Amino acid sequence: MEIKQIKAYGTAPAEQPLAEMNINRRVVKPNDVEMEILFCGICHSDLHQIKNDFGGTMFPIVPGHEILGRITAVGDHVKDFKVGDLAGIGCIVYSCGHCEYCEDGIEQFCDDGVTFSFNSLDHDLGGTTFGGFSKAYVCNEKYVLRMPSFENLAAAAPLLCAGITVYSPLKHWQAGLGKKVGVLGIGGLGHLAIKIAKAMGAEVVVFTTSSEKVADAKRLGADEAVLSADSEQMAKYNRKLHFILDTVSAKHDVNTYLNLLRHDGSVVLVGLPPEPLEIGAFNVVMGRRSFAGSNIGGIAETQEMLDFCFKHNITAESEIINIQEVNTAFGRLAKGDVKYRFVIDMASLEN
Amino acid sequence: MEIKQIKAYGTAPAEQPLAEMNINRRVVKPNDVEMEILFCGICHSDLHQIKNDFGGTMFPIVPGHEILGRITAVGDHVKDFKVGDLAGIGCIVYSCGHCEYCEDGIEQFCDDGVTFSFNSLDHDLGGTTFGGFSKAYVCNEKYVLRMPSFENLAAAAPLLCAGITVYSPLKHWQAGLGKKVGVLGIGGLGHLAIKIAKAMGAEVVVFTTSSEKVADAKRLGADEAVLSADSEQMAKYNRKLHFILDTVSAKHDVNTYLNLLRHDGSVVLVGLPPEPLEIGAFNVVMGRRSFAGSNIGGIAETQEMLDFCFKHNITAESEIINIQEVNTAFGRLAKGDVKYRFVIDMASLEN
Repeated sequence: MEIKQIKAYGTAPAEQPLAEMNINRRVVKPNDVEMEILFCGICHSDLHQIKNDFGGTMFPIVPGHEILGRITAVGDHVKDFKVGDLAGIGCIVYSCGHCEYCEDGIEQFCDDGVTFSFNSLDHDLGGTTFGGFSKAYVCNEKYVLRMPSFENLAAAAPLLCAGITVYSPLKHWQAGLGKKVGVLGIGGLGHLAIKIAKAMGAEVVVFTTSSEKVADAKRLGADEAVLSADSEQMAKYNRKLHFILDTVSAKHDVNTYLNLLRHDGSVVLVGLPPEPLEIGAFNVVMGRRSFAGSNIGGIAETQEMLDFCFKHNITAESEIINIQEVNTAFGRLAKGDVKYRFVIDMASLEN
Repeated sequence: MEIKQIKAYGTAPAEQPLAEMNINRRVVKPNDVEMEILFCGICHSDLHQIKNDFGGTMFPIVPGHEILGRITAVGDHVKDFKVGDLAGIGCIVYSCGHCEYCEDGIEQFCDDGVTFSFNSLDHDLGGTTFGGFSKAYVCNEKYVLRMPSFENLAAAAPLLCAGITVYSPLKHWQAGLGKKVGVLGIGGLGHLAIKIAKAMGAEVVVFTTSSEKVADAKRLGADEAVLSADSEQMAKYNRKLHFILDTVSAKHDVNTYLNLLRHDGSVVLVGLPPEPLEIGAFNVVMGRRSFAGSNIGGIAETQEMLDFCFKHNITAESEIINIQEVNTAFGRLAKGDVKYRFVIDMASLEN
């Protein structure tokens, strides 16, 4: 297989700052698309992975799975993309394509295990897949998204993971028109959830631990914003919400939020706290409530989400950085010090 | 209000054996039905309540909420019942009747709070409601069930709580024809869940910690029965089940069972472990799975369940006892030493 060497930012040993390194990309096969990466978002799970919080990190690692670029080459069989097109790659870069999950368009749960854009086994080159903190990506066209011409392209990159992560459960649990929807946490995920749930027609109530973010939640479109420590305010929502999207990635109390649900309501987790969460039996048994989870979304749904966000003029509130600032950015992300998504301008990485 | 004094079995102080006592019942009001109690089942939540495991027990207490009897008096406005009819009373003896929950037939979640057959505030007599460990019950006809003429009447009493507790979630989550359904735990609830899920058309896999119960599960109708400590057997069901009914009332590991679910599957808790259960984020996020709960069922659904069980010849495997043996029975129930439900023959309590 023909390969090309390109520049990337990653780390070989754990617990080291990311630094410039060389990685290989395959030359396009007949169904492949190659893109020059213009922007790449930084997601909380990039941070978890480089710190090996889940225990499954394979080093060396190049993170990044909110990958927006311009197509530089297409294989002979590619029909839907041409050189010069804007395109996106999210979390998924391969799946078996024929199991019931793939056939149902939920490739993220593929029976054979999905290939993620980084830190998965690379079935073409061997080793592991390397993510979007790099100059280029090569991927089968089935996993490439058509990128609408967002005015602020950089701010659209985070839609490719954060956007679909919140869009998919909001849609699956029908958290739209006529529904009272809670959003727990305002970060990369939560701030997009506010915008998307509002665009879907829901009434949105935000719960935050930060008094400073109460005003911000309203600026982002929330109908109401509640400081979770204010028990009087919280009690107002007892048994009132149809659905709560829980975007918190650290250990937290879920029971309080289960009790804000109407009967048959769900708290749906999209964050990935490394420690288990405790659920009191009465909090689900009473009202037939659920604590559920959701993980990104399939390729077709990701395309649907991009088109929805373009139509409703939704992008992430983004702070654009150069790749050389990425370690500082991870440090700030760990402290929650970002409003609300870092996006790397990949032009800052020299070829 | 006119009252009658009757015999019952209960306890005034906590942590004392149950003993004979006198309690009051109201004389029937225009919409009331009075029944002589023939049989009363013993449920695990009777045990939790007399031990004050949930902290909300009001003493003195007379437990019992699987109440089967023969009608001895009806109020002037009662049309659907007459003296001599067999009838049942389950967990619910009153609710507001006009909130959206009552209007939707899920009175158990009534906005004003439901009145349970024991250990609730008694809005007629003051004090608390007293349950079915007694000679008679008086109740508004809306909460009285028509009792089909089961061949083994005693064994039908447990349907009034255990039966509806498992029927309602099996029906709500559509765990019938074409579905692979797990039942976790074989006790009062679990053994009825096997029978009802089979009658609904599901393929039933039972999970138990007791090797002795593996054979019993098959006798009860399960297609397969798995010892939960056998990791090889357990692994066979990874991502295979549509739904798992979790009937365990003690602290236990839910994550193992979440991982046996297909995508969009649910583990639904109907037991009431007093301690919280721990859920790992990945176990719900991957496969969009849910951990949910369910609590008994509404009155109309309880009637539907009784008619379904009569049609399919389903009753509880019951050990009939006299009321004087009730303390021994609670001791055995605490150790799981009953196959699978104690039912008290109330003729053993002298008037």
